[in-house]
Amino acid sequence: MSDQSHSEPAILAGNLHGIDLSKLPKNLDMSVETITENVIAMHGNCPDERTKFIFTKLITHLHDFVRETDLTTEEWMSAIHFLTATGKKCTDLRQEFILLSDTLGVSSLVDSINNAKPPGATEASVLGPFFTDDALHVENGQSIASEGKGNYLWVEGKVLDTKGNAIPNVTIDTWETDGDGLYDNQYAQRGGPECRGRLQSAEDGSYAFRAVVPVFYSIPSDGPVGGLLKSLHRHVFRPAHLHMMLQAEGFEKLTTALYLNGDPWITSDAVFGVKSSLIVDMTEETDAEVARARGFKDTQKSHKVLKQDFVLATPEEAVTARKALLARVVAK
Amino acid sequence: MSDQSHSEPAILAGNLHGIDLSKLPKNLDMSVETITENVIAMHGNCPDERTKFIFTKLITHLHDFVRETDLTTEEWMSAIHFLTATGKKCTDLRQEFILLSDTLGVSSLVDSINNAKPPGATEASVLGPFFTDDALHVENGQSIASEGKGNYLWVEGKVLDTKGNAIPNVTIDTWETDGDGLYDNQYAQRGGPECRGRLQSAEDGSYAFRAVVPVFYSIPSDGPVGGLLKSLHRHVFRPAHLHMMLQAEGFEKLTTALYLNGDPWITSDAVFGVKSSLIVDMTEETDAEVARARGFKDTQKSHKVLKQDFVLATPEEAVTARKALLARVVAK
Repeated sequence: MSDQSHSEPAILAGNLHGIDLSKLPKNLDMSVETITENVIAMHGNCPDERTKFIFTKLITHLHDFVRETDLTTEEWMSAIHFLTATGKKCTDLRQEFILLSDTLGVSSLVDSINNAKPPGATEASVLGPFFTDDALHVENGQSIASEGKGNYLWVEGKVLDTKGNAIPNVTIDTWETDGDGLYDNQYAQRGGPECRGRLQSAEDGSYAFRAVVPVFYSIPSDGPVGGLLKSLHRHVFRPAHLHMMLQAEGFEKLTTALYLNGDPWITSDAVFGVKSSLIVDMTEETDAEVARARGFKDTQKSHKVLKQDFVLATPEEAVTARKALLARVVAK
Repeated sequence: MSDQSHSEPAILAGNLHGIDLSKLPKNLDMSVETITENVIAMHGNCPDERTKFIFTKLITHLHDFVRETDLTTEEWMSAIHFLTATGKKCTDLRQEFILLSDTLGVSSLVDSINNAKPPGATEASVLGPFFTDDALHVENGQSIASEGKGNYLWVEGKVLDTKGNAIPNVTIDTWETDGDGLYDNQYAQRGGPECRGRLQSAEDGSYAFRAVVPVFYSIPSDGPVGGLLKSLHRHVFRPAHLHMMLQAEGFEKLTTALYLNGDPWITSDAVFGVKSSLIVDMTEETDAEVARARGFKDTQKSHKVLKQDFVLATPEEAVTARKALLARVVAK
């Protein structure tokens, strides 16, 4: 501060917009060493403790990142341009920031934290952007895919609780790519639901449906996130998978997916959805009689078979699992 | 993994787009504990070490933030919506992401890291969004502001090196708000440069110009960043300041600002630009003869006087200062 005589503060005061200056922090000297505590002090008047906590952590990590990388002005400007372009790319049909979150593993991490399962229950996986609410209602054993949409697949199993008891009347949503690696809502023209269906588990907890073998596909790569992955020398593929969402009264909703063993991208999913307990093997069924019984049109063709049981947790079990997870990994 | 027999991987392989699978990481099991190392492994093939380093740090801090806050799915979705809206708000005339960076102290921190000054040299401050290249060229002692744009201010001083020698022919850009708290480029109609000018230091390093007393103002608060600050119970004001940018051959460019002592927001600048060494006092000059000699039109009015010398660093001194700073604060 200069040693000249002070000007009259009142002259500069003007309209304070009702703000009580005595309640503001006294920040000075925004040096590399002191700025973080100063920025955090600025939200000291926020009455919501959770908001305060989140932003204290956010500012600390942001600043530590800048300090630890000794970030240059040019790199900072690149980040500004990237974030701006990512926002500009978002439309009602495309969410480039979710794609960014997905490809940096943030979505999968948030999913794992929020959907911890007890031992024995089926693990969760990311919902992804392709779920729609207008699935075709199918009876057990019917098909969620039209003829010609891909190679034949038969899916069957049971829905159980953690004690092994069958759960009837579970609403099961399932959706997948067709044989060309596209979800129905990725086509410019979409007549109605395709390769997606909704069914109920039977009295004994069993479910079954016809589908097509899902194939691996590329995430949208023509935007800023695609450019980022390219500069990181990362590929843009997701391994083949079948989405499953299960809901039943008295149980936690389970959003998960089954990943096909042998897929070339199974160990390098671009959005980090794969969990080893969710990798499944298919078998091949060549018996024409079985194909006929299962309702496949071309009984001369063999079909793949995917057998998978799902184990749902109760809300109480989920709370316990989440607490155990947090105690283990969340340092507060 | 299920214990059913393996399907034939080749069936699933398809077109690998020229990617060598043997060079990809082997990720599995995206648990809360393991996901970070898995995501980092994915850019292991990036040949640019700096890019790899930056993204390793970014992913680590992002994931630690999510784990340490136990971020909920709803909070994550709020963040997605906020970032999207921030991108959408950006135009050629408004950069909401820079505003976000400013209000979180990131811009100031990046500035401090990249513009470290040696002892005795004038400290830097943030450039801000209001600099334009078309400033009015003025001679020493002339005015950068039109009559009626605010209260009279006389600014004078010398430009020196760290040894106290005068530096002649320094190009000095200066810009400020008018008495209404607005920069010329915030008006819908802008005829030409106003309250901004470019001059040269004289042979003895001295400079002087007429201006108006800058006043405090609100950063743009009608967008997502304004909403964020409101939810954090933070105000949106910047203390009154005069921007200065000095360039001379053989010296580091200095981008800085002088902050007026006594301003109500001097210790809580919404964008964290204030450094105590940049806070200046004004004096008041009531002598009509002095006002006449300095060229003020209404000599019956008193005017404020701001005396400030600037000390420029050489590139060598700047490199040394930056190294010293990094050794002190950057943990790598």
